[in-house]
Amino acid sequence: MDGGGIADAGLTDSYFSTSFIGVNGFGSPAEAKYPMMQTPNPTASEFIPKGGSTSRLSNVSQSSMSAFSQALFSHPSMGSPATAGLAPGMSLSAGSSPLHSPKITPHTSPAPRRRSHTPNPANYMVPTSASTSVANAVSQPPSSGQVIQKETVGGTTYFYTDTTPAPLTGMVFPNYHIYPPTAPHVAYMQPKANAPSFFMADELRQELINRHLITMAQIDQADIPAVPTEVDSYHSLFPLEPLPPLNRIQKTSNFGYITSCYKAVNSKDDLPYCLRRIHGFRLVNTKCMVLVDMWKKIQHSNIVTLREVFTTKAFGEHSLVFAYDFHAGGETMMSRHFNDPSADAYFTKRKWGQHDGPLPRQHAGLLPESLIWAYIVQLSSALRTIHTAGLACRVMDPSKILVTGKTRLRVNCVGIFDVLTFDNSQNNPLALMAQFQQADLMSLGKVVLALACNCVSGIQRENLQKAMELVTINYSSDLKNLILYLLTDQNRLRSVNDIMPMIGARFYTQLDAAQMRNDVIEEDLAKEVQNGRLFRLLAKLGTINERPEFQKDPTWSETGDRYLLKLFRDHLFHQVTEAGTPWIDLSHIISCLNKLDAGVPEKISLISRDEKSVLVVTYSDLKRCFENTFQELIAAANGQL
Amino acid sequence: MDGGGIADAGLTDSYFSTSFIGVNGFGSPAEAKYPMMQTPNPTASEFIPKGGSTSRLSNVSQSSMSAFSQALFSHPSMGSPATAGLAPGMSLSAGSSPLHSPKITPHTSPAPRRRSHTPNPANYMVPTSASTSVANAVSQPPSSGQVIQKETVGGTTYFYTDTTPAPLTGMVFPNYHIYPPTAPHVAYMQPKANAPSFFMADELRQELINRHLITMAQIDQADIPAVPTEVDSYHSLFPLEPLPPLNRIQKTSNFGYITSCYKAVNSKDDLPYCLRRIHGFRLVNTKCMVLVDMWKKIQHSNIVTLREVFTTKAFGEHSLVFAYDFHAGGETMMSRHFNDPSADAYFTKRKWGQHDGPLPRQHAGLLPESLIWAYIVQLSSALRTIHTAGLACRVMDPSKILVTGKTRLRVNCVGIFDVLTFDNSQNNPLALMAQFQQADLMSLGKVVLALACNCVSGIQRENLQKAMELVTINYSSDLKNLILYLLTDQNRLRSVNDIMPMIGARFYTQLDAAQMRNDVIEEDLAKEVQNGRLFRLLAKLGTINERPEFQKDPTWSETGDRYLLKLFRDHLFHQVTEAGTPWIDLSHIISCLNKLDAGVPEKISLISRDEKSVLVVTYSDLKRCFENTFQELIAAANGQL
Repeated sequence: MDGGGIADAGLTDSYFSTSFIGVNGFGSPAEAKYPMMQTPNPTASEFIPKGGSTSRLSNVSQSSMSAFSQALFSHPSMGSPATAGLAPGMSLSAGSSPLHSPKITPHTSPAPRRRSHTPNPANYMVPTSASTSVANAVSQPPSSGQVIQKETVGGTTYFYTDTTPAPLTGMVFPNYHIYPPTAPHVAYMQPKANAPSFFMADELRQELINRHLITMAQIDQADIPAVPTEVDSYHSLFPLEPLPPLNRIQKTSNFGYITSCYKAVNSKDDLPYCLRRIHGFRLVNTKCMVLVDMWKKIQHSNIVTLREVFTTKAFGEHSLVFAYDFHAGGETMMSRHFNDPSADAYFTKRKWGQHDGPLPRQHAGLLPESLIWAYIVQLSSALRTIHTAGLACRVMDPSKILVTGKTRLRVNCVGIFDVLTFDNSQNNPLALMAQFQQADLMSLGKVVLALACNCVSGIQRENLQKAMELVTINYSSDLKNLILYLLTDQNRLRSVNDIMPMIGARFYTQLDAAQMRNDVIEEDLAKEVQNGRLFRLLAKLGTINERPEFQKDPTWSETGDRYLLKLFRDHLFHQVTEAGTPWIDLSHIISCLNKLDAGVPEKISLISRDEKSVLVVTYSDLKRCFENTFQELIAAANGQL
Repeated sequence: MDGGGIADAGLTDSYFSTSFIGVNGFGSPAEAKYPMMQTPNPTASEFIPKGGSTSRLSNVSQSSMSAFSQALFSHPSMGSPATAGLAPGMSLSAGSSPLHSPKITPHTSPAPRRRSHTPNPANYMVPTSASTSVANAVSQPPSSGQVIQKETVGGTTYFYTDTTPAPLTGMVFPNYHIYPPTAPHVAYMQPKANAPSFFMADELRQELINRHLITMAQIDQADIPAVPTEVDSYHSLFPLEPLPPLNRIQKTSNFGYITSCYKAVNSKDDLPYCLRRIHGFRLVNTKCMVLVDMWKKIQHSNIVTLREVFTTKAFGEHSLVFAYDFHAGGETMMSRHFNDPSADAYFTKRKWGQHDGPLPRQHAGLLPESLIWAYIVQLSSALRTIHTAGLACRVMDPSKILVTGKTRLRVNCVGIFDVLTFDNSQNNPLALMAQFQQADLMSLGKVVLALACNCVSGIQRENLQKAMELVTINYSSDLKNLILYLLTDQNRLRSVNDIMPMIGARFYTQLDAAQMRNDVIEEDLAKEVQNGRLFRLLAKLGTINERPEFQKDPTWSETGDRYLLKLFRDHLFHQVTEAGTPWIDLSHIISCLNKLDAGVPEKISLISRDEKSVLVVTYSDLKRCFENTFQELIAAANGQL
């Protein structure tokens, strides 16, 4: 491709005017669920500059594509054929001899030639305004790529960008999509010793797939008949905890009631929620709903949002149900950190009257202090928001704190105590809040102490002194002071704000980690953002190619525009070497599809299967054939033909 | 599909044992560039539970798929045919009459039946351990889904998970990939008044595509001959600023030298970097390199990392080049915020000796305080890291601060002053650092003041009093005190740590915003994570179907395993209604591809084009055909056949 790519030189700047960017709206829940897939054909031509030569970029895509196509198709010995499967010196563009296609011969693999750019008299891309913003500039003209107008048509938002020709000439922007490499700040990102860890790209993918599975899991109704089909506006209930055995009552840790917990889909918005059912509870007074309404307004990244509370008899008895956001793949802090019974040994020994053993050796089996601070920052952030709203958490407990991913916490089950223990004789539902807020701080102190001891026994009154010794030996004085502040009655009202100075510069650490994590996920998303579009292109092509019959015409897919698309399909998939062996390169497929999607003026030679005729067409011709044909199919499917 | 899906009931739990998860390594730069695409065939069967009935989930995928397929293919009148394009009561699974296929008739669109789960005697999926982790549980057994062993083979890491059969029965996990809806906490996320804004999903996609374009942009060497082909180990230089005119010297804002700035690709790792060239600079002493080495070790999310410094004559004169990470799409704070000349009016009037006009009305044209604090937190975070490392920033200036996205800052050009103004007579290169650090704090104060005035004139000495009045009237006393602290000589050494109490609880705001942003990007990534895999499946199928000839056999693609795959292709793409009109539904294509990828035991009836023969095969048969055939092609391509 290096030498080719001479396209219509007569294109003027006006060719590039009025580029527009179509992205789907992010409006109603029903429409917004699959933004990428819903986008009405967001082809490349809609959001990247059109026209111009593409050849300047082919060596880039070559170098970057060949590596992954080899890995993908597991033929490392294949070498690095030129991007479009051409022998050196051959070109698919205008003027090249097409006689050997589709038997295009990559028998000599040209070495990557990116260092020797062949000067080329092709016309140059004038970047549209959307691409003039460049980086790391010390000073820079105002970006003309700002969206200057937008319009929403049928849920799709179109951004019209400034069409002023950009001032830079001689610069070539890709006019079809290609995959850039990872940015160095992510490629070389090092974990930091004092920062909480987070999922890197591959782990995150696995986590996301697990979340998919959990979110979509269902039960077999016949097998678990105890679960009702429908509860209020929720359906597809899926138990998240073992159903409580009837003969045993485990009320203590669950608000003094038997509770159960389900994932369910709300039929109003088709989104998954978590329902917590309080068994056998009759709500006699709705005064407490003022507190529920306050909870519903709280949105915080470390609190599971309460969406609604309702009563139901769908379970065969009076039940009260709290509906929360569903966070797939979460587990409780209790199960994540306090599940190892042997961790209690240090304290349980003492309880059994034995001699004090030696203190556990420094840090042995204890959590890293950075993790504990990451948790403190998140939990205090949640408490601060709750207290500022005039409420109290009342569920600051390892069994009510959800952990998702590596270190993200969310306080769960908020509002349940406010309803279950509501004193109807009390005129002011907020009367006890100040007292509950003080209890929250005590509870936070216990959670932190349990984390520092890495077991829940440490927070028992009789172990407190020993636990504090453990903290003193193994952790910073800031951590010790924070625990002491929270656990000690201060003879004055304490406030969660008072612990901020003890957190101090650790806020910076947390923010740095969160921003680094953002960078990682963004890079990961950048790699994927094109794949949905490419998949849809191939799916559409599939509906056209080889269709046995259309409008009672059995030759439809072999004639007219469809014939070109058939030959293009052969060009995409059925390249062979001169020796007749298959030449398979995903980079070639991606590159051709991107050019088709962009409708670039580059020419391509399509050869009939008998090799007797050659059709030289531009990708923009092919794009027109492709779109018209698919519209024809859709019109027929809709009964409009 | 609701009534179908009866599969081999003889499958036992042992069928599900030893599931393993193959994900690509994230190791060497060369291999890690396209993690998703590089994964050696990460088919669904590798990372999701195998076997079992799939029918229980078809109604879920139906409801979620039909919406987007309509939007995608723009035929909203099509209604909601059953997932696999079957009329009610028909099934593609064992036992159904296949006589009407491929003319499968969706002429009556069954209403979504998700609320009435038909009990079904199929064997149930036993979830593998990877899917037992459920969310929002108050208490939970220890997750058995933890990776218990991992192994790296040829750059691919295999995670072996615990194969203990999960304790839950009667629960159905999807055994092929489907797209879950957006989680409610993201679907209903509200912007917060006091928090910095960030890109939501669609804007982020647009931003990522723009970054792609910028990262891949190249120049035409013939048009800009002044740019060398190669500089040290960098190639593909692309000027990021207009080249400095030879007859004009703009040294003042650029370290007292003429500088220019290029994007370039390092041939050692193929990653893009930003090169800042100092024209006409001869490095006479390398003692300053001790500082460069210190800078190279600094990794922070608000600092552009310096990677290397070298001298070169590639530009035709002695030049010194600083190589930094390239952050595509960034612009300077100067161009983002201080580009409006009219903003200076309030101060320039005074300079011209006019009467003091009235103060600008409250907040008119000023930046929101939340944005200023977001910037303060990031810039002080960068300073804190730099000062802790024993260095000084020396470039805390709007023209040297990069803004990417909506509010992310990065201090750019670090280390340049340390080299350019290095005093070779000084024995200790760090001797002046304490003094420079104090200057950094003063510079930070000026940046904050300029932001608060929304113009750079405010920081001129003669405007200082007026500027502080503006701040006092329009912003909080915390902000005023912070600026005063930074700008006032304190008769003692100031420290960036001293401003933490003034930031106070705003740290929580920033962290909450960063975590919310993480949630949004993660949800977005979750939607895309399957598309690469689906694209590769279709690409592979394309290389098989309709191949004109293989191993000199022109009937290859019409016979044997390939014949089944051809009929499967028709089943995927060429469904028609009873009236013979095309029936086009992306959800059908996705669902069938996912079943193929997972190799589920569900049966499918493939009908010959003449409708005279019917082949009933399982998806697992098809998967075997598919993989064997593709391996055959690859082996031939590698010359092994």
